[in-house]
Amino acid sequence: MRAVDLIRKKRDSGEHSRDEIDFLIAGYTRGDIPDYQMAAWLMAAWLRGLSSSELAALTEAMLYSGEVLDFSDLPGKKVDKHSTGGIGDKTSLILAPIVAAGGLTVPMISGRGLGHTGGTLDKLEAIPGFNVNLSLEQFRHVLKECGMGLIGQTKEIAPADKKIYALRDATSTVENIGLICGSIMSKKLAEGIDALVLDVKVGSGAFMKREEDAVKLAEVMIETGNRMGKKVVALITDMEQPLGSAAGHANEVIECIDVLNGGGPPDLRELSLELSAWMFYLGERTQSVEEGRRLAETMIASGHAKEKFKQGIRLQGGDDRVVDEPHRLLAARSRVDVVSPASGYISGTNCERFGIALAILGGGREKKEDAIDHAVGLQFHKRIGDRVEKGEPLATIRHNADARLSEAKDLIMENYFIAQEPPSGKRPLIRRILGA
Amino acid sequence: MRAVDLIRKKRDSGEHSRDEIDFLIAGYTRGDIPDYQMAAWLMAAWLRGLSSSELAALTEAMLYSGEVLDFSDLPGKKVDKHSTGGIGDKTSLILAPIVAAGGLTVPMISGRGLGHTGGTLDKLEAIPGFNVNLSLEQFRHVLKECGMGLIGQTKEIAPADKKIYALRDATSTVENIGLICGSIMSKKLAEGIDALVLDVKVGSGAFMKREEDAVKLAEVMIETGNRMGKKVVALITDMEQPLGSAAGHANEVIECIDVLNGGGPPDLRELSLELSAWMFYLGERTQSVEEGRRLAETMIASGHAKEKFKQGIRLQGGDDRVVDEPHRLLAARSRVDVVSPASGYISGTNCERFGIALAILGGGREKKEDAIDHAVGLQFHKRIGDRVEKGEPLATIRHNADARLSEAKDLIMENYFIAQEPPSGKRPLIRRILGA
Repeated sequence: MRAVDLIRKKRDSGEHSRDEIDFLIAGYTRGDIPDYQMAAWLMAAWLRGLSSSELAALTEAMLYSGEVLDFSDLPGKKVDKHSTGGIGDKTSLILAPIVAAGGLTVPMISGRGLGHTGGTLDKLEAIPGFNVNLSLEQFRHVLKECGMGLIGQTKEIAPADKKIYALRDATSTVENIGLICGSIMSKKLAEGIDALVLDVKVGSGAFMKREEDAVKLAEVMIETGNRMGKKVVALITDMEQPLGSAAGHANEVIECIDVLNGGGPPDLRELSLELSAWMFYLGERTQSVEEGRRLAETMIASGHAKEKFKQGIRLQGGDDRVVDEPHRLLAARSRVDVVSPASGYISGTNCERFGIALAILGGGREKKEDAIDHAVGLQFHKRIGDRVEKGEPLATIRHNADARLSEAKDLIMENYFIAQEPPSGKRPLIRRILGA
Repeated sequence: MRAVDLIRKKRDSGEHSRDEIDFLIAGYTRGDIPDYQMAAWLMAAWLRGLSSSELAALTEAMLYSGEVLDFSDLPGKKVDKHSTGGIGDKTSLILAPIVAAGGLTVPMISGRGLGHTGGTLDKLEAIPGFNVNLSLEQFRHVLKECGMGLIGQTKEIAPADKKIYALRDATSTVENIGLICGSIMSKKLAEGIDALVLDVKVGSGAFMKREEDAVKLAEVMIETGNRMGKKVVALITDMEQPLGSAAGHANEVIECIDVLNGGGPPDLRELSLELSAWMFYLGERTQSVEEGRRLAETMIASGHAKEKFKQGIRLQGGDDRVVDEPHRLLAARSRVDVVSPASGYISGTNCERFGIALAILGGGREKKEDAIDHAVGLQFHKRIGDRVEKGEPLATIRHNADARLSEAKDLIMENYFIAQEPPSGKRPLIRRILGA
């Protein structure tokens, strides 16, 4: 077998056998196949597409390029959630303690933020001392002790994906449903989970702007997971505006604590409960999603979820006092309001721009190497459909440096859209559920 | 400007500006843009295509990546011919002396054989002492002395093409009309010529199997040449069977001498005269193609072309005695006939396979590094439409090693097609003339 022939085959819309995919992925991971051949193949695959059996083979080859964790000796089913990312999307910090408190194991390997979206690892690092860089040994210990653990991708997990992802980034072959699916699923399945709940975001703040694209990605991930014997459901959820009221790392941790205390913004609470409910159901902890929902609500009301969060923080080296005393989190020095330039109703947002505003303030990365200021943040006061008067605050910026403040302010102001009439109809937060 | 953005643009069917093409080609040639980014761009360009203005910019960028020769101080127009290659295609060795004898300058930079097709440089090296590796200084001297010179691509000529071609070879991005055109034209235009005659082969022994593809390639090359102020015509010629009767290096040199002596196979003589006629006409040596044809015939009949060939050989260090004493060329030790398995009429050939048979015998390369046995060869006795009896020789193999002889014999026998009825209609050797 020769890489040049496989490139030609994909270029000419051929379908690869499992052996061919294995040859490509293993050869590239070992370094036998050079970057330039993989780059040509990736572009051919980007443009010609991958069939569902190619995709399953690709995912499996990337998965088995590294270690596949085995937690079968730990109690309960192993379940996880993956979100395709958005503004203010912080449900992992809420549902992991809920689901672990409810008796399942949540071995969560997460990512960092890049561009306009935040990352779970960065949010956790807003908690003083929290260590996301556990060895697999330490990860296993934490999971055994408390049923939840949140770490970054280690070098043992799907090294093929790590190498291929870096190449895709440099060759404009990122935004492809098949390749995205392979990348996500190979990492998630390496967690040794039984079931996975996907939160596929759609809207101006999401990677997928159109519902049909989000559905397509969800379907491909469900099929790939099912082919590998995993239960997978996908919730297609709204990202036309931020989730919850807070963006920025410390800010978001506080909002998660609010939800675990039984409060918090209704949309964030709703989505966290719904995702937890599906995790309980797929993890066979409950007989139905409704029962899962009730269990999730109980875990909050009883304080068990909050206690679990504190335990998880402690086990990963963090200061768990922040849960009861959020002022211990780093706070920005200054705050300033972004006020409405007109009276009317919020008709929509281009909420990707809010993420960019946060990055401009230091609360996000433009390049992978950039440092993050965990203290800066945004607080959103208005949601789609809300009435607003001219001069009334749309959002509040919490910042440390003034250098690019006015740029950030403008970005936020310009990307709240104001109409004279309230928008018609109701916006469902959860648009569709697939794979159920 | 960033390479990753240009890759994305081509991936999404965008059209590059001249500046963007310059950035890519210059950046890659300098080594600022890595192989993997160029590979991804090449695959995107392969699949999305290049517009005629992109192609002109690409050709020009590759052309000016190196030295563009200037022979304006030499007498007469500078003209050349380029063939897309086929089996037994040896016209360069005939038309260069004809056209130089007729008063024009032919600065010919040629290639080597790979796979089933032969290369002019390899054929010339069948002549003892002939040196194709002249410096540009020596090349100029030879051209000044005798009006013809035949050398290989030097490091000064279109280095971008050289680097990109190697990458295309490794990434299955060779067979694309735009990229082929850019590669050919950037090298040919570096010769500092005024006019170019293209011999675009079509048929089972050619790179282009279908006439429409050959026409498309011809049109693109003509347009690119015209945009750069050069006169270009293309002859679409038949390659459903070998050109002439001989394949193999020494064998082909002998057949060229036959034509220069006024004999040789009718098809080879015909095509050589026709290509020479067009070179005379485009080079403004004659008022018409017909007049060019008569001049070419005169150059043969008078012996001037043959004398010019001898002079050219001498000036490039070769033993010019071979022209009058062809037995001085290396001969293979043994010969064996390939006989017809049936009686009937030759209805066609898959003549690419004859080229592979020659390569198997040592008279061609499978890899660029392979050495060539200039003595081995094939002599074809039957042409399409000829009557053949069972047991009658179809071809004769001249060989030195027996190792793969039976394989080569089978390849030849199986790829002469024999029917009970003679094929209907006449096969024109020159199917179309474009750009005239």
